[in-house]
Amino acid sequence: MSVFPVGEYQARVRRAQAGLAERGLGALLLTTEAEVRYFTGFLTRFWESPTRPWFLVIPAWGNPVAVIPSIGAALMAKTWITDIRTWSSPDPVDDGVSLLADCLREHAGSGKIGMPMGRESVLRMPLRDYDLLKAELGALAIVSDGGLMAELRAIKSEAEIACIREACAIAGRAFDRVGEIARPGVPIAHVFRRFQAICLEEGADCVPYLAGGAGPLGYDDVISPASETPLQTGDVLMLDTGLMRNGYFSDFDRNWAIGRAAPEAVSAWARLLEATEAARQIARPGTTAAALYHAMHRIVGGSEAGRLGHGLGMQLTEGLSLIPGDHTVLQPGMVITLEPGITLPGSGIMVHEDVFAITATGCEQLSPDAPRDLPVLT
Amino acid sequence: MSVFPVGEYQARVRRAQAGLAERGLGALLLTTEAEVRYFTGFLTRFWESPTRPWFLVIPAWGNPVAVIPSIGAALMAKTWITDIRTWSSPDPVDDGVSLLADCLREHAGSGKIGMPMGRESVLRMPLRDYDLLKAELGALAIVSDGGLMAELRAIKSEAEIACIREACAIAGRAFDRVGEIARPGVPIAHVFRRFQAICLEEGADCVPYLAGGAGPLGYDDVISPASETPLQTGDVLMLDTGLMRNGYFSDFDRNWAIGRAAPEAVSAWARLLEATEAARQIARPGTTAAALYHAMHRIVGGSEAGRLGHGLGMQLTEGLSLIPGDHTVLQPGMVITLEPGITLPGSGIMVHEDVFAITATGCEQLSPDAPRDLPVLT
Repeated sequence: MSVFPVGEYQARVRRAQAGLAERGLGALLLTTEAEVRYFTGFLTRFWESPTRPWFLVIPAWGNPVAVIPSIGAALMAKTWITDIRTWSSPDPVDDGVSLLADCLREHAGSGKIGMPMGRESVLRMPLRDYDLLKAELGALAIVSDGGLMAELRAIKSEAEIACIREACAIAGRAFDRVGEIARPGVPIAHVFRRFQAICLEEGADCVPYLAGGAGPLGYDDVISPASETPLQTGDVLMLDTGLMRNGYFSDFDRNWAIGRAAPEAVSAWARLLEATEAARQIARPGTTAAALYHAMHRIVGGSEAGRLGHGLGMQLTEGLSLIPGDHTVLQPGMVITLEPGITLPGSGIMVHEDVFAITATGCEQLSPDAPRDLPVLT
Repeated sequence: MSVFPVGEYQARVRRAQAGLAERGLGALLLTTEAEVRYFTGFLTRFWESPTRPWFLVIPAWGNPVAVIPSIGAALMAKTWITDIRTWSSPDPVDDGVSLLADCLREHAGSGKIGMPMGRESVLRMPLRDYDLLKAELGALAIVSDGGLMAELRAIKSEAEIACIREACAIAGRAFDRVGEIARPGVPIAHVFRRFQAICLEEGADCVPYLAGGAGPLGYDDVISPASETPLQTGDVLMLDTGLMRNGYFSDFDRNWAIGRAAPEAVSAWARLLEATEAARQIARPGTTAAALYHAMHRIVGGSEAGRLGHGLGMQLTEGLSLIPGDHTVLQPGMVITLEPGITLPGSGIMVHEDVFAITATGCEQLSPDAPRDLPVLT
């Protein structure tokens, strides 16, 4: 029932346990969807419901322990996890806290318990319960995992990269069909609905993310939902999708000119491709995230987005950011997007994005090649 | 650009400020999608990216202040919010913490700052930054909001109920078309993909949630993703979708017999409808969540789900739980699901779900009427 063979998850646990040993931690405590799935293969969209907390404990040795609501017991039992402790959630008095505390006392010994507390981490349990848990644990302290979870997830296995490659191929086929749905007079909201349906037809399991925009000289931003405004001749349309396949994301966008392409948009498109190519040429082990940023920034300038690309994988965005202040050194197995943005005359912007896996000697583009010329939909 | 007129958001702020005054709080600090959108109308799927924190401050008087990444400035400026403070995020050194601390010092005066800390709440910012914020604020303490946010969101306005009604109508039309896609031999994964596309065709903006199952005497659970197993004659198929329209959810399911209906499934279906009807008849102001639970439990027994229904609205599930321990008293404007589950001979289950708004004197069913007889797809 899981996406990968058991060995993949076991290898992840062993790497985590090496990291726990290095950091002198007795156990790792996890509360979020991606973190729990990373070690267990537990794949469900039920996390959309915020009601119930879910916990996974990675002990310093031995197998992970799932401390979860009983509604998840049947599905968790289909993964490789055998130590599954459940309670009837929601429980207004004790929503898993004492069960979790017992498990941590049993497994962490006298060692500290690490939790992800740095960039991008979320505490997916009520703060009140977190305080109760700390009180129950007494001298057994909860501390930062020292970046362990982020480090583990940053380097993807071949099997993970294959999932992202497949997700990107699905998105590529969907982008190739945008001519079926986008033309002058069609409301953007209609394009958004139909495009998500096309992603599903092409093999997406679900489409957690879609944003986009349209305007005569670019669009306002890259995070807007659809409006009922009809596309107009001369608009530049952008769609940016994060679709999922087997629990892994694609994340890239495409641009089209509606009816005809304004010279400013054609010129901006050329510079976006130039910037992407400049970064791609140096995307290899040893290059820093900041160096990729500067390679693109030299050509396209800065952006309200605050970064010109990022890691991705089990989440739409994860890990490094292409900004001047991120000195992360690229390593084989990292998967990143290059996402330069450019401001057009007026205040509109255009953004281009592609996905790359870092290899031993360079990088492999996981998203299909973008068209050299800004495509015109008529 | 927002779903509701400005007056709707202003009324929410006034109610929040009355709650702050009652609790002696100087400001309310919010970090999650639904909380920020509740007061601002800021609607974007960009929250799917975990990288950047977003903050909203509701002062004890005056208008809300958005403290957000610059990537969101253009979209937030299209809402009624005018005090928008941005920084270039992600920032490895100070990801909005000092900007937020300044805003809180300015607006909270000497009052304590409330945050949601109870059931269903999530801290959508790194724990490390939360600790930094508390240190920066010094004597200005962050405390629980005393359930304020949950109280406000529990009572929906007419405009909110209209959104949920529309989402439920869309899901109803999609369920009516399942006969187009589900028949013996079709893999469940194919049904899942096609069903999501149908939801979009019928008017969903997106489909954040879909779960389901199939088996000869019910299914294993109600949270599983799709498998490649083909549907077989005699299976009971269940699809449970949470689709969104204008930022509000539908959440209900439907069941079908594939080819022919087993007598056990027919009998279970009748009891699920009977249980739903028993609860519907007492769903009115003054009844408790626990009473609804008992009305259904008497007929169908207990469930691994741990509850037999819940609130919904801006999130797939939110607010009260139909469990023995939830003594919340129903009030006009609450929106709930009745979701009885029943165990069949063997270990399979069947679950039925419908959506209801509590009115002044009873309830209004927002989901279309379920078929009296278990529908058979041939």
